Amino acid sequence: MALIDVKTLERNEAGIAKVCGALKEIFGERFQTGQAIREQHGHTATYIPNQVPDGVLFVETSGDVQKAVQLCAAEKVPVIAFGTGSSLEGQLNAAAGGVSLDFSRMNRIISVNAEDLDCVIEPGVTREQLNDYLRDTGLFFPIDPGANASLGGMASTRASGTNAVRYGTMRDNVIALEAVMADGRLIRSAQRARKSSAGYDLTRLLVGSEGTLGIITKLTLKLYGQPQAISGGVCSFPDVEAACNTVMATIQMGIPVARIELLNTLQVQAVNAYSKLDFPEQPCLFVEFHGSETGVQEQAELFGEIAAEYSGGPFAWAKEAEKRNALWKARHNAYWAACALRTGEQFGALSTDVCVPISRLAECIKATEADIAENGLVAPIVGHVGDGNFHVLVVMDMKDPDDVIKAEAFVSRLNKRAIEMDGTCTGEHGVGQGKMAYLDLELGEAVDYMRMIKKALDPDNILNPGKIFSL
Amino acid sequence: MALIDVKTLERNEAGIAKVCGALKEIFGERFQTGQAIREQHGHTATYIPNQVPDGVLFVETSGDVQKAVQLCAAEKVPVIAFGTGSSLEGQLNAAAGGVSLDFSRMNRIISVNAEDLDCVIEPGVTREQLNDYLRDTGLFFPIDPGANASLGGMASTRASGTNAVRYGTMRDNVIALEAVMADGRLIRSAQRARKSSAGYDLTRLLVGSEGTLGIITKLTLKLYGQPQAISGGVCSFPDVEAACNTVMATIQMGIPVARIELLNTLQVQAVNAYSKLDFPEQPCLFVEFHGSETGVQEQAELFGEIAAEYSGGPFAWAKEAEKRNALWKARHNAYWAACALRTGEQFGALSTDVCVPISRLAECIKATEADIAENGLVAPIVGHVGDGNFHVLVVMDMKDPDDVIKAEAFVSRLNKRAIEMDGTCTGEHGVGQGKMAYLDLELGEAVDYMRMIKKALDPDNILNPGKIFSL
Repeated sequence: MALIDVKTLERNEAGIAKVCGALKEIFGERFQTGQAIREQHGHTATYIPNQVPDGVLFVETSGDVQKAVQLCAAEKVPVIAFGTGSSLEGQLNAAAGGVSLDFSRMNRIISVNAEDLDCVIEPGVTREQLNDYLRDTGLFFPIDPGANASLGGMASTRASGTNAVRYGTMRDNVIALEAVMADGRLIRSAQRARKSSAGYDLTRLLVGSEGTLGIITKLTLKLYGQPQAISGGVCSFPDVEAACNTVMATIQMGIPVARIELLNTLQVQAVNAYSKLDFPEQPCLFVEFHGSETGVQEQAELFGEIAAEYSGGPFAWAKEAEKRNALWKARHNAYWAACALRTGEQFGALSTDVCVPISRLAECIKATEADIAENGLVAPIVGHVGDGNFHVLVVMDMKDPDDVIKAEAFVSRLNKRAIEMDGTCTGEHGVGQGKMAYLDLELGEAVDYMRMIKKALDPDNILNPGKIFSL
Repeated sequence: MALIDVKTLERNEAGIAKVCGALKEIFGERFQTGQAIREQHGHTATYIPNQVPDGVLFVETSGDVQKAVQLCAAEKVPVIAFGTGSSLEGQLNAAAGGVSLDFSRMNRIISVNAEDLDCVIEPGVTREQLNDYLRDTGLFFPIDPGANASLGGMASTRASGTNAVRYGTMRDNVIALEAVMADGRLIRSAQRARKSSAGYDLTRLLVGSEGTLGIITKLTLKLYGQPQAISGGVCSFPDVEAACNTVMATIQMGIPVARIELLNTLQVQAVNAYSKLDFPEQPCLFVEFHGSETGVQEQAELFGEIAAEYSGGPFAWAKEAEKRNALWKARHNAYWAACALRTGEQFGALSTDVCVPISRLAECIKATEADIAENGLVAPIVGHVGDGNFHVLVVMDMKDPDDVIKAEAFVSRLNKRAIEMDGTCTGEHGVGQGKMAYLDLELGEAVDYMRMIKKALDPDNILNPGKIFSL
């Protein structure tokens, strides 16, 4: 029993056979059709059942991508871009079979333009690879979704994460991109200038389109100077509402907080147990400030005062990298800490990602906690609350139908609750297959215009079919 | 003789007559067909010849807009949204006739959500109206293109201006919008949540589409807390290169400068004469910092040190609102100061708006100054240099064919120069009719995909036809 009924679309057997034959002939060993490798390239990171592609091409140049897409276009065969496989909503599943393009070898950093605070990279570059490369330049790329995802994948799902409250999401940090379109042509969406009013914003149309409108082959990304100083720490609160009010006041005061993450009581307990820490078993905020030496001190003190007004604190903060790193390591392990709340390898956590206006955040989290309690779920909460975005990690036995049905019903109620509060069912994971049912509910007839765009740009539906919406 | 050959498209006389009759019947006095009012609603702010619409409907609700678009759709008659008429590239011209929708009465501020730092407004609200309304709330909307434009118009052209280096452009500050599409349906592009990965980014597709994909009827905009303190001042430099290097270093250091505007020597002379000021007749930067009391002091001091390294300064800065306001008033009057460089009412200034990577800025401005000198033009330069964006104000006699031809050739060389430097021909004014010739040069085959989107969403080409690209 699967949590979600993944739709299998009609396969074009003759076309697939023809394309696979041609790719083998052209690319030799770089085109793989073994079962294990194909399974790796279907969706793997979540509960969604795997729909394996018919073959995997390890692309090395945009010319390879073009060649592959042209072959697929001629035979109307699906083609799906693969970065590191860390997406969460079935984005990589081959719903109608076809070819997976593995970008792990297209991981060159083409140029770093320090004077312009930008870089040009291939989409297989991961965020950690980029930041390792940048370390000595005094620059960094801030978007951090947790996983060491490829930047092409992060662009495709409009990813964000802990730093988005200060630095924005992938939407804000892609200056331009190159992509192979469904007809096999390679286009450049924009020049490298910081801003432009030159026609439709194709950059932002492709960012977040989950590989359904074009396959990204190059990205120009914004970079930032590594902050002169960083301070950060943990602040406990009597309840979720006090923590949320503190977040709201912090943002409203214009304190340029770099990260502000809420952990509810159960998540604190999980983190304590998993990372051998001893935070008070209360909701808490993990915060970080970037700036000048005096700036981060000022920000931290101001935040402490706000927290105290809402009965939070004391706010213990530190400038030492070591203490901060321990903190953020614990935060990054929140998912594994959650999974460890139930013992047994059949347990996994389903991660939701609703996002609501921050004024509705406390109400949304409280209603969700009540829902969790009522239904006897094990489901800690951790969130990028500066943006109104939070994850419920529903820990469940993937093989127990009762558990699965309960989780499914909970997710449905949560997504609807967020949408009713003028929020979204997905703040950062994307729609993929997992959230298709909620997109119409959220955006109504607007989805029809997405369909029109898809049909215009990919009339044969070869680019990652069966994702985001049904056609 | 016009600077630009404005194309007149084929008119659908029968359809236009039918729609005008129906609008008169439904809306009475709110539908106007007098020559003067029609001329006001064609393009007025520049050298581009006026192509008048056949009638002007003063819309009051999104229902009015829907009704009008539905009538136009049924008869395949053009419909053009009009805010305040301050666009610069012929965006409002009725190239094939049709109906202009005047949004000046759709200027309600629907809600200000202080806790969420956002507001919901009708598109006829102007930026000054919004900021007047916000004054007592402690919030403000930062985008300032100079003119008191309507926010709907600013969204449509992806406008920006002096504050963009810190606060971004309209692209970054529209959270969601409502629009009437070419088939007459009203859609909502997104929820009010701060971020979302829910499907294609229709918000950003409509922002900057110059009324060719949909007509905006509501905007949800980001707001910001009024800075606790502001400091600002003027800093002179021996040459443009030193000023540009200072800008680059300032940005690279991560100083969150709120505005940083370059005036070249001729523009300083013009400003001195027009505003009765006595800045040294050298290139200079007008700068402004927003932050806490200690923050703005720190920023201003750091900036002064950087400027000194490049032989600039001394940097005289002040926190007093009066001194700063005099400065920015002079900056806002730069256009009129430029026009006054030549006496006579036949003189006007054509404002270009190229934008290049900041590392190429000094080179681009120097080459442009050399071009101006070689060709004997009167053309001061003023720019939002923190973004690599600058305006050449080409002062010319609109009735002298020699002047016009010279200006036209200069603009062509300038746009091509910027494009060759990985820049754009338009950083903030949009394409309209004036820059259609450069879009293909800048983005190549990518423009074909814009055409496909236009054809899919507006198959009868009724929304602002003849703009951005030819079909």
